[in-house]
Amino acid sequence: MRLSQYFLPTLKENPAEAEIVSHRLMLRAGMIRQSSAGIYSWLPMGLRVLRNIEQIVREEQNAIGCQEILMPTIQPADLWRESGRYDDYGPEMLRIKDRHERDMLYGPTNEEQITEIFAASARSYRDLPKLMYHIQWKFRDEVRPRFGVMRGREFMMKDAYSFDLDAESARLSYNKMFVSYLRTYERMGLTAIPMAADTGPIGGDMSHEFLILADTGESEIACHKDFLDRNLSDTDIDFESDLQPIVDSYTSQYAATDEKREADVEAALGDDLVTARGIEVGHIFYFGTKYSKPLGARVTDADGQEVHVEMGSYGIGVSRLAGAIIEASHDDDGIIWPDNIAPFKAGLINLKTSDAACNAACDGAYNDLREKGEEILYDDREARTGAKFADMDLIGVPWQLIIGPRGLKSGVVEMKHRASGERQELSLESALTQILV
Amino acid sequence: MRLSQYFLPTLKENPAEAEIVSHRLMLRAGMIRQSSAGIYSWLPMGLRVLRNIEQIVREEQNAIGCQEILMPTIQPADLWRESGRYDDYGPEMLRIKDRHERDMLYGPTNEEQITEIFAASARSYRDLPKLMYHIQWKFRDEVRPRFGVMRGREFMMKDAYSFDLDAESARLSYNKMFVSYLRTYERMGLTAIPMAADTGPIGGDMSHEFLILADTGESEIACHKDFLDRNLSDTDIDFESDLQPIVDSYTSQYAATDEKREADVEAALGDDLVTARGIEVGHIFYFGTKYSKPLGARVTDADGQEVHVEMGSYGIGVSRLAGAIIEASHDDDGIIWPDNIAPFKAGLINLKTSDAACNAACDGAYNDLREKGEEILYDDREARTGAKFADMDLIGVPWQLIIGPRGLKSGVVEMKHRASGERQELSLESALTQILV
Repeated sequence: MRLSQYFLPTLKENPAEAEIVSHRLMLRAGMIRQSSAGIYSWLPMGLRVLRNIEQIVREEQNAIGCQEILMPTIQPADLWRESGRYDDYGPEMLRIKDRHERDMLYGPTNEEQITEIFAASARSYRDLPKLMYHIQWKFRDEVRPRFGVMRGREFMMKDAYSFDLDAESARLSYNKMFVSYLRTYERMGLTAIPMAADTGPIGGDMSHEFLILADTGESEIACHKDFLDRNLSDTDIDFESDLQPIVDSYTSQYAATDEKREADVEAALGDDLVTARGIEVGHIFYFGTKYSKPLGARVTDADGQEVHVEMGSYGIGVSRLAGAIIEASHDDDGIIWPDNIAPFKAGLINLKTSDAACNAACDGAYNDLREKGEEILYDDREARTGAKFADMDLIGVPWQLIIGPRGLKSGVVEMKHRASGERQELSLESALTQILV
Repeated sequence: MRLSQYFLPTLKENPAEAEIVSHRLMLRAGMIRQSSAGIYSWLPMGLRVLRNIEQIVREEQNAIGCQEILMPTIQPADLWRESGRYDDYGPEMLRIKDRHERDMLYGPTNEEQITEIFAASARSYRDLPKLMYHIQWKFRDEVRPRFGVMRGREFMMKDAYSFDLDAESARLSYNKMFVSYLRTYERMGLTAIPMAADTGPIGGDMSHEFLILADTGESEIACHKDFLDRNLSDTDIDFESDLQPIVDSYTSQYAATDEKREADVEAALGDDLVTARGIEVGHIFYFGTKYSKPLGARVTDADGQEVHVEMGSYGIGVSRLAGAIIEASHDDDGIIWPDNIAPFKAGLINLKTSDAACNAACDGAYNDLREKGEEILYDDREARTGAKFADMDLIGVPWQLIIGPRGLKSGVVEMKHRASGERQELSLESALTQILV
């Protein structure tokens, strides 16, 4: 993508309204624009990031046999009256009357809706287990939305739901999600820590939150140091096998935040204890028959008895992650995108657009990479070199290919690695090969 | 995907509430489920179709240099007050008050929002031309929603917007979209006919609707017969070249619907006239400065003068197309998916799940195709053969691979082409090769 044509309205100044670093950087890098309080448009580069996050979430959900559907944003209030949550939910629910004065709402979550869909067709234990998810916009009318996409009113969430015949089978579904979440965050370059959580308004018996580490995080985490260097995403996991040992290996270690912390446990851990700050990016719940009973989601079991299905729900804040990843990965100059999230793998800086040979080399490199399927961000603008360097650092793509007339004369270009700041001089051919790896 | 595990709640009976064939077939084939009047959930197979449509639309927008963004569903009413449309829009606009009693609305379209985004950063004629689009859910509170996704309340639309310095340049953008739309529909296996249209509430000077041919279409079309066998999608078009000759080759031919028809022209056409039925699936508008003036979208031109940008908007009904394609392509047995839209390229029917050799051959074929990247729909259910044939015809995937014990003994399987009904016996290897082509 040529920057001269790209819609990338970067800002030189820090926007006054942005209180946290991810919000500032997303606005400054031209990723988002506020529409109204807590509601954002995603501009081209921001959308590329959002799609990368979404795709990793999708792939890891598919990998455990979770089937993708898409429920609408606007739900009928009657469905929520059946579960009793229409009245329980406070002013965070955006309530709407349609032209016929029917009560509707903008879904903050979808337990009722998915239960209705499942109940309409499921008949037998042979239809179980079933895992389904969707990635859709939600609305929660926060009283004071702030922190950009980290706490927006309209936000994109992946919410998945499990349906099982009994509690034991429900635990297998829960475990699949538990392990899948760890892989999901790891693929995004994040260290995620699962911790036992309260179930809150969704209700239920078993629940874990997933917090990722970020110095600017909203909560203080205390945990066993082993959490910091675990790795699941390179492991080839058979999700149909018993995942309990993997889950236990996480849940048996101490990890807590805020009022859940236990001073005596922490004292006993000694040097094994680390404290850090974290951001919640996912939450999983097992809640049994809380929704299947009022909404009549029943199947017949192997003995011909009708039973209510056991359910769980599993959320990942997709749009929130765009902010959370920046909180976890930035420096004074801007964003440092993890490889799998970066909007572009590389940027190309043309140091002298008034130089024909330099333009030819840059255009050639750009076209060559495009033809090989690698879309990079090509700064072909007539602008000061300093501004180009600053913008590319701000945008935070992993690699910067810097081409200028002086280097070309000696047959070299420069590659800068954004995360480490390391620079190397090499031939253009070697640089292109490195980008294509 | 194994049908025994897939969430595909097919219906044997025609649902009473469905008045048109696409609605009936989408419900029967388990593609969608109604949430409330005119609002649907997309079940796994329906979502695959929706994504295929979306992806073709996206690729063809990208091909003309249109940049993808994503605007929110909920917009502030104040933005629409600036253009004057907040009061003009009737009860089809879903009006909402948030918890602070601020007037909001669920966007039925996005002219105001994109103009505000553009205006906030554009400064100079060098920022032009600019084409941007998004694919997002919209809401129009139809008084009596019906016809399934063909006329839903919550629907997915691709809406694009062009920004140009002057009317002549705006025509170039309009022409890009015009040609791009023809290619988009062709790739979906549809014959689309552009016809001059009224501009309606969006306002403006130049407008075309795109209607696709379907026997069950909502409008009668009369047009020159040349429209029926034109083909653009195989042509390698340079979108930076002058597209006026291509556009003229379409607009110079007679095509009209309803009250726009001209009896004298039709009489003169004689045998060159054809009449057919059509469904509107796209609409493009040029409306000059209608929004840029009230919303202050200005740039400085080459002489340093401030001018309001010239704009156009360009819509494609993405979710509507799922229904429209079925209206255009079905028979008494069910849907006949065009190749590029089909949720799966092929279905595999296991004729005898109680036969070990038959299961082994089917499982082998299924796994082999999966490993080669072709996900097919594998009917591995213990069900009557007749039900399996009927379901596969209903679902309408292009190819059916039918494997049974009798054929296997003589070394053959059967391939059925859904559209033509042609069947052939061939070796399993040849069948797999044919599916992978």
